[in-house]
Amino acid sequence: MLPRKLKIAQRSHLPPFMAMEVMAKAAAMEQAGQDILHLEIGQPSSSAPKSVMAGMSSIMAEQRNHGYAVALGLPELRERIARHYQDWYDVDVPVDRVAVTVGSSTAFALSFMAAFDEGDQIALPNPGYPAYRNLMLGMGVEPVMLPAGVDDGWMPNLKQMERWDRLPEGLIIASPHNPTGVIIAADELREITAFCRANGVRLISDEIYHGLSYQTRAETALKFTDDAIVVNSLSKYFSMTGWRIGWMIMPDELAAPVERLAQNLYISAPTPNQRAAIAAFDCAEELDLHCERYAHNREILLNTLPSAFIGNAAPCDGAFYLYCDISALSDDSIAFAADLLEATGVATTPGVDFDQENGHRYLRLSFAGATEVIEEAASRISDFVAKRLSNAA
Amino acid sequence: MLPRKLKIAQRSHLPPFMAMEVMAKAAAMEQAGQDILHLEIGQPSSSAPKSVMAGMSSIMAEQRNHGYAVALGLPELRERIARHYQDWYDVDVPVDRVAVTVGSSTAFALSFMAAFDEGDQIALPNPGYPAYRNLMLGMGVEPVMLPAGVDDGWMPNLKQMERWDRLPEGLIIASPHNPTGVIIAADELREITAFCRANGVRLISDEIYHGLSYQTRAETALKFTDDAIVVNSLSKYFSMTGWRIGWMIMPDELAAPVERLAQNLYISAPTPNQRAAIAAFDCAEELDLHCERYAHNREILLNTLPSAFIGNAAPCDGAFYLYCDISALSDDSIAFAADLLEATGVATTPGVDFDQENGHRYLRLSFAGATEVIEEAASRISDFVAKRLSNAA
Repeated sequence: MLPRKLKIAQRSHLPPFMAMEVMAKAAAMEQAGQDILHLEIGQPSSSAPKSVMAGMSSIMAEQRNHGYAVALGLPELRERIARHYQDWYDVDVPVDRVAVTVGSSTAFALSFMAAFDEGDQIALPNPGYPAYRNLMLGMGVEPVMLPAGVDDGWMPNLKQMERWDRLPEGLIIASPHNPTGVIIAADELREITAFCRANGVRLISDEIYHGLSYQTRAETALKFTDDAIVVNSLSKYFSMTGWRIGWMIMPDELAAPVERLAQNLYISAPTPNQRAAIAAFDCAEELDLHCERYAHNREILLNTLPSAFIGNAAPCDGAFYLYCDISALSDDSIAFAADLLEATGVATTPGVDFDQENGHRYLRLSFAGATEVIEEAASRISDFVAKRLSNAA
Repeated sequence: MLPRKLKIAQRSHLPPFMAMEVMAKAAAMEQAGQDILHLEIGQPSSSAPKSVMAGMSSIMAEQRNHGYAVALGLPELRERIARHYQDWYDVDVPVDRVAVTVGSSTAFALSFMAAFDEGDQIALPNPGYPAYRNLMLGMGVEPVMLPAGVDDGWMPNLKQMERWDRLPEGLIIASPHNPTGVIIAADELREITAFCRANGVRLISDEIYHGLSYQTRAETALKFTDDAIVVNSLSKYFSMTGWRIGWMIMPDELAAPVERLAQNLYISAPTPNQRAAIAAFDCAEELDLHCERYAHNREILLNTLPSAFIGNAAPCDGAFYLYCDISALSDDSIAFAADLLEATGVATTPGVDFDQENGHRYLRLSFAGATEVIEEAASRISDFVAKRLSNAA
């Protein structure tokens, strides 16, 4: 008998992120001296707030030990996060329900492990952030796609879910949504929480793009329910992506399970980063300037991109993404993104990362960069589209 | 029909860490003004190396954006880690096989997800670090306890494993070992790798306590095999616990799966922390002073603790733990640790955290603290034991 072969786990065979392949190709072109405009990256180009960075320097100057924090996070940071819900939403969140995590990613991992067992199902908006699905597969939870595309008014289609044979144990919603930028209005959010309550569906509300909205502010699910898991982080509005500080607000009964799982999954989020992060919640003046830039960038894209490119784009009410319907130009978003990058140096993300069914018709543009970059990108895309249309004619 | 109840996952019902309960009680006593000696905590009392902290301050002063790093880590840090294997072990590790992780915890999580599917088994040394087992349960992998106690010469008993009906898909070893401090000699390590190769067992070698040894240096499993997953971090020898920077050296075929899983599990380890951490590998002079302190502390414990307490302790060859056989004094390590804490203010960890079967006879003492603390603790423990024995007589 031959010796048993060492294996690679089935669950590690995840679809690759096209965005990563685009980033790798863009990086190679950049290294070869080409001028690349990065509209593929979902993160602010700005630095962390000045007082956060100054705080980190002071922490270093103390020359003291930075050991593990307790698993649910430094008490001062948890308190500041709880107060943030009072400040922003007028919602009372007890400190005991706050968990500090390593970015929002591990908050999702903990949610899946704490509230769902193997074989359980969670419904996910489609299009949506691909890591939800991939993480679930890694943890034995079955993702079920819930239509949330153009035919559904870009909203999670609960009506359709009601017709399913099996009601999933969980539902993820995201508002503002990645990749569409769609915000779920307060009334609709209330209906979703009521639906979940009536049907025993655990709601996970991804609120990582809160603070980035262009029409009306996004409401927190906590306004309407204490049963939901709310996930957020310092990566987007707070401009602290690489610091890896996220958080979750948990229902009471999940606090102990989440604590036990966090102790084992990552022990604690980085301690000096947690200490420095507390100041971020008092930097609205500086951070709101970034939001003004995003709003301006968004206007530029909406006003100057040709309608063949954004004619049926999703309503971009929040976050910093424009999800463009390119079907007038191509039925293959991967090839289109590659052509666009090759011809113009503008890097974008093919929609297939967010929607395996209809994503071939869409492209995601991030406008989190500098305004000059967005202006130049809009101009290059417009030229590229004009040329492509005239070639086709 | 009543609505379905929202659930708490079965897999979140992990045994609580007794260490955490001891820490909580010790903290409460400390707040009440009592003088507590912390021998329950498995982390250095020293700060990160000076040049690492100075580096972090410089990074902050740059006022630049710190976005996501790529999932496998900053190239400069990965290169420095690869070079560390050349420097320390004379082993050639290609950079492509290095992954930077959020502490060693997420390296284990990624290992379990990348190399094992649900229902697979991994053998674990007993006694051993409890997070192995708990994390596996969270990911649907079945832990199987492999005896490694006093009757097995404190070594993982592979002979016994050969007699099992089913050979597990994986094996974790740790050298120096937590909680025993035992180091696996190079010859034995070679045999273990040969056994794994012959039987198609994926070896995971936990080398987090490398650099902390008092007789002979621990060898890396990479000296004997390229099939093993080697896990390490900056938390112990490098004195950077709260910075949450770990790493794994992967077999070639797991690099792509681990990268995909890391993208989804945590996106990247904290970026400024990664940049600052590079300097840690050039701080041997400073770090070796800590090791001298641990060696001194170890001598104090071994020379002054009564034999009723450490008569049959595990051989403490590395790490900073003494795993004491207290069976001459008690058959209930939880009660004994509580009594000791209550009477003397010395906090220790009951062995049941590391061994559910025989841990009631053992207590783990960490000597990673300041020498004055260890001296005082040894004196208080000696008095406590003398009193207890005279009361019993």
